[in-house]
Amino acid sequence: MDALDRALEKSGAAAYVMVGSSDYPDMRYLTRFITTDPIVYIRRIRERGFIIVSQMEYSRALQEAATGVMTRADAGLLRILEEEGDRWRALARMVADHAGGKILVPPDLPYALGYQLGDLAGVITDKGTIASMRAKKSRGEILSIGRVQRKTEKAMAHAIGCIRRSKPRNGGVLWLGGKPLTSERIRSEIHALLMHQGCLVKDTIVSCGRETAAPHNRGSGPLYEGEPVVIDIFPSDERTGYYSDMTRTVVKGDPAPEIREMYTAVKAAQDLAASIMKPGVSGQEVYQAIVDLFSSQGYRTGTEGFTHNLGHGVGLEVHELPSLGPGGGLLRQGNVVTNEPGLYYEKTGGVRLENIGIFTRTGYRCITSFPRELVV
Amino acid sequence: MDALDRALEKSGAAAYVMVGSSDYPDMRYLTRFITTDPIVYIRRIRERGFIIVSQMEYSRALQEAATGVMTRADAGLLRILEEEGDRWRALARMVADHAGGKILVPPDLPYALGYQLGDLAGVITDKGTIASMRAKKSRGEILSIGRVQRKTEKAMAHAIGCIRRSKPRNGGVLWLGGKPLTSERIRSEIHALLMHQGCLVKDTIVSCGRETAAPHNRGSGPLYEGEPVVIDIFPSDERTGYYSDMTRTVVKGDPAPEIREMYTAVKAAQDLAASIMKPGVSGQEVYQAIVDLFSSQGYRTGTEGFTHNLGHGVGLEVHELPSLGPGGGLLRQGNVVTNEPGLYYEKTGGVRLENIGIFTRTGYRCITSFPRELVV
Repeated sequence: MDALDRALEKSGAAAYVMVGSSDYPDMRYLTRFITTDPIVYIRRIRERGFIIVSQMEYSRALQEAATGVMTRADAGLLRILEEEGDRWRALARMVADHAGGKILVPPDLPYALGYQLGDLAGVITDKGTIASMRAKKSRGEILSIGRVQRKTEKAMAHAIGCIRRSKPRNGGVLWLGGKPLTSERIRSEIHALLMHQGCLVKDTIVSCGRETAAPHNRGSGPLYEGEPVVIDIFPSDERTGYYSDMTRTVVKGDPAPEIREMYTAVKAAQDLAASIMKPGVSGQEVYQAIVDLFSSQGYRTGTEGFTHNLGHGVGLEVHELPSLGPGGGLLRQGNVVTNEPGLYYEKTGGVRLENIGIFTRTGYRCITSFPRELVV
Repeated sequence: MDALDRALEKSGAAAYVMVGSSDYPDMRYLTRFITTDPIVYIRRIRERGFIIVSQMEYSRALQEAATGVMTRADAGLLRILEEEGDRWRALARMVADHAGGKILVPPDLPYALGYQLGDLAGVITDKGTIASMRAKKSRGEILSIGRVQRKTEKAMAHAIGCIRRSKPRNGGVLWLGGKPLTSERIRSEIHALLMHQGCLVKDTIVSCGRETAAPHNRGSGPLYEGEPVVIDIFPSDERTGYYSDMTRTVVKGDPAPEIREMYTAVKAAQDLAASIMKPGVSGQEVYQAIVDLFSSQGYRTGTEGFTHNLGHGVGLEVHELPSLGPGGGLLRQGNVVTNEPGLYYEKTGGVRLENIGIFTRTGYRCITSFPRELVV
């Protein structure tokens, strides 16, 4: 009896039902089946659950899915479609036939299906049961995240290596290999390297100077001597679907004293967070400890200074539960969470360091193994 | 007055409402705004429509969106959230305040929102108005699809070039550059090349031998001499969001006679389909013509032989309307559709050829410009 069974029992529903392709992370999580076409998942209380797939996907699903498998024809859909003109009504009838009572659904179930199911069987909206299950990682999931983190570190090493080997020219623009070193160039090198390693990656941040004051600015144009460069990479492994997430801030040449001080403060905050994170502490508490540390050094939290959460869960999505921020709940063994303090000032720029780690039985074990050096 | 206005008028609804990020293709289509955070789109009848975004996205949305823009605060969400504990209820109240009457929604609106809107304002489920608008491409959309198709062909040429240059070693495994040539290696080369061209790509199929009998098997392990290799690539352009889709089947060395015959039949089927497709013909008719052609040559349709549809629309999704299959409706000028006959037998393997083309005023113009050669 797992959390989903308990949610079913508590709600009085007979089955949990969701619809989607494997791009829908809850579907991928519960079925482990990769499909671009939407499938139906039905899990009756205390049963293993099964998916309903097209005839074409049946044999592959039998081999690959972590659930039972039924074809649409065997589930009765083709027969029902002969009687029902509306395909959502037909789908709902098929689902109701197999659910055997009231149905628990995620809030983002397609409305047309939920509406018809409400009419046929009764619908109860679930509040985050699967998200909460996903937050506690298995050994296999932790291995998958570790593997993509190793690849991320290779890409980071390559990116920082380019900056290290570059030389400033007139106006302080960094040059490498006879060309200016730009955000776009480093991003494309990172992406090519990760693709070669079997990763999917997009929206990598390589920002410089004033750009770094906005944590989500992707960055564009040349990189400059003496200015902070923030590199934030969050690929997923194409095969497993698991993400990692990593950030470093570096400067080629001599940074402004404010940037040096911010870097020292961010590094200390990351160390403090790593030392106090353990199962039983809340995400809110850890976040607050960092707010307090920054505050004691004169760095504010809010629209400038420490402007974002301290961390977030990582798994089949790059942002998932738990949250290390205001309202963040209890942290548990098996959580995989980023530790990413940052400081941002419009006129000075930004500094962020992001590691990722696992909540063990007694503490937090960082799995990022990469130096933190400001000046390269 | 466009198709959406007509749908609003016909349904008696005051406004069309949808929710999602730009990963939701209808949102990207109607707003042209790129965002990873979900936004709300509201379009009252005969108005331009507007999106509701976070304060942080406001100035970017003003510049980039094809619609009006309002912040959540200005839309009243923050005020309503102070009164409502449930965030779906709060969102529904905000939407109802702006819609001004009954609301037309897509079938895949999140159920929790639709349920609350039903209570507050009345909800009518739309049947595919946006999908049908999206099926008819503008000149700009056709250019975007053409551009990504050119990049796809470069990747295909590179992949087939690797197979062509490889040499069989013991056991018939193909080797290139001192290493076995595997599905994974070719997939990773294709992905790296497409990433460098600014494309997003995943799930590329490079299957070989028995694997090819399952059209969606991605393939793994070494490629073999004399065996069919199916390469199916469907990237999207990161900047525009438009997809292309392309498949070739090749053999290094000497294929089995059955594979040669299947290849000839599939090529003839593709030529026949291209010659009969034109506006006013239905997707069902075109599909049936190919079923009949295959049948006349002894190839069945169903669980083996011709096991999938003949084609599908391509645009902001890799599979969209119209369908060239059972129940496929009338084809219209501006449709962009794949032409992809295939034959699959458990013991022999599979052969598929996939081109893409545009329905012009009088016919079907193929935009794939790439040789069809079995033996390389």
